[in-house]
Amino acid sequence: MAADGASPRDGRMNTVDPESMLAAAYLSRVAEPASLPVFLLVRQLGYLAAAEAIRSGDVTTEVRQATEARRTNTDAEADLEAAERNDIRLVTALSDEWPHYAFASMHAVADRRVAEWLAGGRKRPDRGELIPPLALWLKGNGDLSGVGVRSAAVVGSRAATAYGEHVAADLAYGLASRDVTVVSGGAHGIDAAAHRGALSAGGTSVLVSAGGLDRPYPSANELLYSRTAESGVLVSERPPGSAPHRQRFLSRNRLIAALGSATLVVEAAQRSGALNSARYARDLGRPVLAVPGPVTSAMSTGCHQLIQREENPAVLVTGLSDVLPYCGSLGEGRELACKPAALNDYDGLDEAARAVLDGFPAHSAVTESDLARLSGRPVQEVLVSLPTLRQLGLISVSREGYRRSLS
Amino acid sequence: MAADGASPRDGRMNTVDPESMLAAAYLSRVAEPASLPVFLLVRQLGYLAAAEAIRSGDVTTEVRQATEARRTNTDAEADLEAAERNDIRLVTALSDEWPHYAFASMHAVADRRVAEWLAGGRKRPDRGELIPPLALWLKGNGDLSGVGVRSAAVVGSRAATAYGEHVAADLAYGLASRDVTVVSGGAHGIDAAAHRGALSAGGTSVLVSAGGLDRPYPSANELLYSRTAESGVLVSERPPGSAPHRQRFLSRNRLIAALGSATLVVEAAQRSGALNSARYARDLGRPVLAVPGPVTSAMSTGCHQLIQREENPAVLVTGLSDVLPYCGSLGEGRELACKPAALNDYDGLDEAARAVLDGFPAHSAVTESDLARLSGRPVQEVLVSLPTLRQLGLISVSREGYRRSLS
Repeated sequence: MAADGASPRDGRMNTVDPESMLAAAYLSRVAEPASLPVFLLVRQLGYLAAAEAIRSGDVTTEVRQATEARRTNTDAEADLEAAERNDIRLVTALSDEWPHYAFASMHAVADRRVAEWLAGGRKRPDRGELIPPLALWLKGNGDLSGVGVRSAAVVGSRAATAYGEHVAADLAYGLASRDVTVVSGGAHGIDAAAHRGALSAGGTSVLVSAGGLDRPYPSANELLYSRTAESGVLVSERPPGSAPHRQRFLSRNRLIAALGSATLVVEAAQRSGALNSARYARDLGRPVLAVPGPVTSAMSTGCHQLIQREENPAVLVTGLSDVLPYCGSLGEGRELACKPAALNDYDGLDEAARAVLDGFPAHSAVTESDLARLSGRPVQEVLVSLPTLRQLGLISVSREGYRRSLS
Repeated sequence: MAADGASPRDGRMNTVDPESMLAAAYLSRVAEPASLPVFLLVRQLGYLAAAEAIRSGDVTTEVRQATEARRTNTDAEADLEAAERNDIRLVTALSDEWPHYAFASMHAVADRRVAEWLAGGRKRPDRGELIPPLALWLKGNGDLSGVGVRSAAVVGSRAATAYGEHVAADLAYGLASRDVTVVSGGAHGIDAAAHRGALSAGGTSVLVSAGGLDRPYPSANELLYSRTAESGVLVSERPPGSAPHRQRFLSRNRLIAALGSATLVVEAAQRSGALNSARYARDLGRPVLAVPGPVTSAMSTGCHQLIQREENPAVLVTGLSDVLPYCGSLGEGRELACKPAALNDYDGLDEAARAVLDGFPAHSAVTESDLARLSGRPVQEVLVSLPTLRQLGLISVSREGYRRSLS
């Protein structure tokens, strides 16, 4: 991820037609938290037609329930104007900058939940539960598209101790200096310390905000927001002007988990939101790591509980070398520490992922470009398919490359 | 373990004849560190005949090599006199007070190593490596025989931090107040804090010393030795007057691990002797537990490494409730967290253990007295056999009782 010019984002929005952007802006406001029926409708019809259907009310009961309160809103144009005034851009799944690679696992989880729900084996997925966002509001000179290939979410308590902030800043500094993108929120405590660490290494970081990007929250962190925007990216699911409500912090956490190759919890009290991020990471099949601390410190209780878990325990981290193996996709990877609970078969795979999987040799390890050649698919598709295949346990990653899992 | 009178040990030595006691005193000095060939000779011939054979030099090359330097020593009588002057008693495997239950795992490991060595699959076991002691010098009003049924070794660095000493004292207090016997060394730091914690709860503790019990080491801990002796037991493998050499600390550590139902490491630097105790505990098939601490503290490095181990990782402990399930034999037990590396079959079992194993019902859980009835063996034999069976993974322990492992 790198800034690629003085004003690199000019015209970026234009890769998608203005009508669709208006529709996306409308949709980004109409259903909150993210709603599975709305997500499925948009995937089926596209932004424009989905927005029209919702506005007209000509939709299923489930979509209507999720959108009734706001379906007549006419804020889209004003939102886009406010965004432009504040150097904020809107990106959708059709934009070049959409983080397909990072979000592939979230799509896979949503697909699996839908399949299980339709098969009657499970209650309807909760709203907001790892449902992919419809659009994202971004700000900053960095590019979000490659985030997740080599990144780490660094999360923890707002009311962190001096110890926790020291460790967060130190690890984030080390990660950033090894070209790992640091992903965190914009709060006091561990979030702020992680960004400070990444900035001090001259690295890039991604700050995911619960509210609108024109309203840095807490306001004391305004400088952190602006410094991060210089080389990194600010991300929000909510349009400009949105206040950071509690529910928005929760759904924000799923984006942090999805954008990190791994999630590292530095300090967390017993009911910290950071544990919620850790759960999302687990559900996405991503490694969860935790920093231990004094057993006499309430701020380390959550971390210790994560390490003590019987199922998918967090990896105990004492320093950078414990984190790095989990941040890369290839090169210094190792097999994922945790796998999602319900592993099914190939049925949920899209055509591209199936082709990529079929391209794997029986025993040897291969690189992304090998796979493009072997599967006859563009590298971009290979890159997007790999996290899903990995998340489903169908392939593994090692120092030598990607490898078909033995079944 | 409880003191059972004002001068409860009077005549205890007399349960073994004086000649054998002299032989045991001689043997306790003649081979150091513990030697497997000497141990086997004593088991084969008994104390008296083994001592005579060694003194005469009419033994195998291996026994001679282990005993040559000291076989002509004539200190036994003086050692026993010095012991009597200092209220120290000598116990052997024939004494009522011998901790059969705690040492059964050590016997099982020694037997397995001998079997593997004789079968040619392995080099001769190292001297001192978990070879059972021939005799022990004890002091204090407590009784050692039942130790290991419900006990915990609490170990760690001499150069502990205030945090480590606080946690050690706190956990030892909690353990002692739940009738768990605390086992530790007599050093500064974690050892001393653990004993202080146990004493402050009015509990009993076992202090295992590397040198003679008439020479408390370090001398600053003299009060700790005398306070421990009031209700607990001081233990040493070495006769009165022995200096606490480095090698004696290492072999002392195996006794600490053997006397604890579990071994808890509170603080340990990277090369701490406490890690050596943890390894002994693992080799005995006993659970190893470790207290995390700040990753910025060198004194917690060893603990974090134990928790990070891929094979048989230590259980992360944040408080008493994490330790208690591993200290009991029955009642609040759970399956052992770690199992010994090489699990063979029944071949290594003695007749009693085989009978006890045969007494197990196929599916249901049973108590010690059920087993005595079912196997037709005295409860004492059942108690001695259970740790071996458990250590070999042939049975498991749960809240309901002992249960045959599914094979």
